[in-house]
Amino acid sequence: MTKTNPGRFFEDYRLGEVIVHAAPRTLGEGERALYHALYPARHALHSSDAFAQACGMPASPLDDLLVFHTVFGKTVPDISLNAVANLGYAAGRWLKPVWPGDTLRSESQVIGLRENSNGTSGIVFVETRGFDQLDDPVLSYVRWVMVRKRDPSAPAPQPVVPELPAAVLPEDLTVPEGLTFASYDFALAGEPHRLGDYAIGETIDHVDQVTVEEAEHMLATRLWQNTSKVHFDATLREDGKRLVYGGHVMSLARTLSFNGLANAQMIVALNGGSHAAPCFAGDTLGAWSEVLDKAETGVPGVGALRLRLVAVRAGTPPFALRDDSGRYAPGVLLDLDYWALIPM
Amino acid sequence: MTKTNPGRFFEDYRLGEVIVHAAPRTLGEGERALYHALYPARHALHSSDAFAQACGMPASPLDDLLVFHTVFGKTVPDISLNAVANLGYAAGRWLKPVWPGDTLRSESQVIGLRENSNGTSGIVFVETRGFDQLDDPVLSYVRWVMVRKRDPSAPAPQPVVPELPAAVLPEDLTVPEGLTFASYDFALAGEPHRLGDYAIGETIDHVDQVTVEEAEHMLATRLWQNTSKVHFDATLREDGKRLVYGGHVMSLARTLSFNGLANAQMIVALNGGSHAAPCFAGDTLGAWSEVLDKAETGVPGVGALRLRLVAVRAGTPPFALRDDSGRYAPGVLLDLDYWALIPM
Amino acid sequence: MTKTNPGRFFEDYRLGEVIVHAAPRTLGEGERALYHALYPARHALHSSDAFAQACGMPASPLDDLLVFHTVFGKTVPDISLNAVANLGYAAGRWLKPVWPGDTLRSESQVIGLRENSNGTSGIVFVETRGFDQLDDPVLSYVRWVMVRKRDPSAPAPQPVVPELPAAVLPEDLTVPEGLTFASYDFALAGEPHRLGDYAIGETIDHVDQVTVEEAEHMLATRLWQNTSKVHFDATLREDGKRLVYGGHVMSLARTLSFNGLANAQMIVALNGGSHAAPCFAGDTLGAWSEVLDKAETGVPGVGALRLRLVAVRAGTPPFALRDDSGRYAPGVLLDLDYWALIPM
Repeated sequence: MTKTNPGRFFEDYRLGEVIVHAAPRTLGEGERALYHALYPARHALHSSDAFAQACGMPASPLDDLLVFHTVFGKTVPDISLNAVANLGYAAGRWLKPVWPGDTLRSESQVIGLRENSNGTSGIVFVETRGFDQLDDPVLSYVRWVMVRKRDPSAPAPQPVVPELPAAVLPEDLTVPEGLTFASYDFALAGEPHRLGDYAIGETIDHVDQVTVEEAEHMLATRLWQNTSKVHFDATLREDGKRLVYGGHVMSLARTLSFNGLANAQMIVALNGGSHAAPCFAGDTLGAWSEVLDKAETGVPGVGALRLRLVAVRAGTPPFALRDDSGRYAPGVLLDLDYWALIPM
Repeated sequence: MTKTNPGRFFEDYRLGEVIVHAAPRTLGEGERALYHALYPARHALHSSDAFAQACGMPASPLDDLLVFHTVFGKTVPDISLNAVANLGYAAGRWLKPVWPGDTLRSESQVIGLRENSNGTSGIVFVETRGFDQLDDPVLSYVRWVMVRKRDPSAPAPQPVVPELPAAVLPEDLTVPEGLTFASYDFALAGEPHRLGDYAIGETIDHVDQVTVEEAEHMLATRLWQNTSKVHFDATLREDGKRLVYGGHVMSLARTLSFNGLANAQMIVALNGGSHAAPCFAGDTLGAWSEVLDKAETGVPGVGALRLRLVAVRAGTPPFALRDDSGRYAPGVLLDLDYWALIPM
Repeated sequence: MTKTNPGRFFEDYRLGEVIVHAAPRTLGEGERALYHALYPARHALHSSDAFAQACGMPASPLDDLLVFHTVFGKTVPDISLNAVANLGYAAGRWLKPVWPGDTLRSESQVIGLRENSNGTSGIVFVETRGFDQLDDPVLSYVRWVMVRKRDPSAPAPQPVVPELPAAVLPEDLTVPEGLTFASYDFALAGEPHRLGDYAIGETIDHVDQVTVEEAEHMLATRLWQNTSKVHFDATLREDGKRLVYGGHVMSLARTLSFNGLANAQMIVALNGGSHAAPCFAGDTLGAWSEVLDKAETGVPGVGALRLRLVAVRAGTPPFALRDDSGRYAPGVLLDLDYWALIPM
């Protein structure tokens, strides 16, 4: 009997089944400090207990993407160990802030299955949910991946493709309990821009860039207990390169976007995302954003910005997302679509 | 008067003397987070307060090897600054879990001395003990090192070589107070295998591999306040390489062994260990284990597995430990023998 | 309207104005653990709660330079984003220990302005102060930088150059409330040397060396939320190198100086400092110290040592600070002048 986990193959998934992921994880001040060492994180609400308390929270919540990576990392051994490609995200919603001391666990429900026409792989759609130690959901999102079949002759399941929203609706955004921007200190936050200062269609070049190191992306990826071999083992690829976890690029781009979006404090929805091209150590990354939409939330003074966040390799001209054929332009690494809360 | 520490030489040790090591160290959530960033640590008992509480503990204890490295690191300035080789370990016992907020200090007693026949060095045997802030012992182990003489003409001491057990006896293993696996959640832990699922002689290839980075092994080794120059100073060796701390390889191998030994939750004894070959940044490491023995402990439901854990360089065939002449096979870096607690 | 911060230029500063810096930051156990992973920090007062409590403190305060870097890092977007050179420090005083859980913020007052004769840049003198969440000052220092003008034709301000002390006077040193060395444990601290064991003019070669890694200096610099692009972006310089943050060299040198100055526990004043030459990843650093002065403080048993701390590249002979022309000798990277508290 083999004791190690070979990962699941396409024919191992059943529509509707719920997969419980190992291992639960208590997040603390150490994870926050590491997040701030690995990424140029400066959003004040996630940096300062005093600032967060002035915004009605008991203390500074952990960074939203730190929570995402933690919940996501647990799914890797069960969902994407034999994945060929990570195809997309949708319907991501942050439901409750996570504080140092909270313990997170994840589970995923299979909500769609479709074999590819070549018969050697298929697409698995899962809805993943993260819970804290009170069993309260803290995050929910849909992800779909292409997974190899173990046995090409295994019969194809009845194809089921879930309907997914193009974006989370503003009325479905969860504003954390108690959050207020009534006495928001723009000087301490770093920029004066409110919701009303941004226009739909506006683009922002975030200017700052960072060169990626092997040690850094591996520290990050291990911290989320992501076990995908390609991030850690330089002997796997012919070129001897280790693939940088796509979430590392997400966090780099999001934190670089502080410069221009310092008041877009909390991510509350992930509408979609594509890892357009692989990232490797040695790459220098920059980021730009486009304002896709604006909305009020039910909470007075708390607005929401829908943003496209694009990570690019240094030297890529900003704001060029796709080429004439509709493909991502060379140098584009990440195209993320999210909602963030911002003072009105 | 020179102010810096030249380290001790062989003739500076006296049989029976107790050496108090600097500096005491408070371990917290930060050290745990770093451990989980530096190593692919996923054992649930060390990852989740909630899981640990379900196992009868007040919170998740710090990883066992984190405690070992902390206690060990303090001994370096007094024991191994002038060591030629780290020869072995024996009789290691974890005596009390360490929690975030505990402060550890170390002391070593010289329990054996034997000058080498060449007259230029000798072997020093020490029993090192780590204590917490209540002066309770948390760890005890024997280690022997070969240390240079300052003055080859210094007289040899009466040779004393301590008798050391081949392994800690099962009845001498300390099961932490309150530990129970009665409501152990195998799904959250990541694997279904109990003590009874392992057979003596069984071997497990842990499959996963990780490529070692300079920044990572130095971060780890500094975190344990290990001051051995060879790990940090690239100008010391002719080849410009920095030697990876042997304990870094221990932790990498142990955490890689999660895949196949996810329920071998707590290390409670170190029976022996050899650093068979040096490790350098750029090496890609894998690991395999062999079940050496199985035992019950006095605590219902809590079993113990005696395991050989072998770290190898990528490309080394698993399960080949020694060559025909009895020497370690090429590519074998570490051969560790320990007891771990596992649900029965 | 551009949303990103272009940084201030010389003509943007007004004498007397107070600049509030973003973003406040809560420091915790995680930042301490990272500091101890990034630097070979072993001073017992900053390592052990138990040791600190025996010295009259409620717990181990965060390392003094960790506080300095945090306060300093916040000033970068407003003071040195367009700086050509970081010219000097003076009158630095640590005013209150910082504990895990404290939140720091920074502000700077412009206390001097002098345009350079070339008309394209000028020198800005600021007094920066760090405050905790109780609005108590924790650190104050003067720093001056050379900053480019945006518009060379902008009129020069009335030149004002503040008078700065060569060193903080011993009577102006702040001994933390409650600090006592009455039951100081020299064995646990690591060395026997008291204030009286050091002589003015004495020099100490700290012997240990460390090779600098890209990942390490970037992790550190990001942790202090320092946004200076030169530390992170390998595409900025023609040679593709990233400049190591000068504060990284300060912390490396200070922690290396444990070996010979283990009892110089707390930094209480920064008298001056020059970054004599740039440091890059791959450099191997050592350090030496010179005793510049000795003093008693008002507190019985607590003495103060004024030290010159010099960081050098490996291979640089110790104790050679300047060449015949008065310039820093090749290989000298840092020349720091500080006061530290030590048992009498």
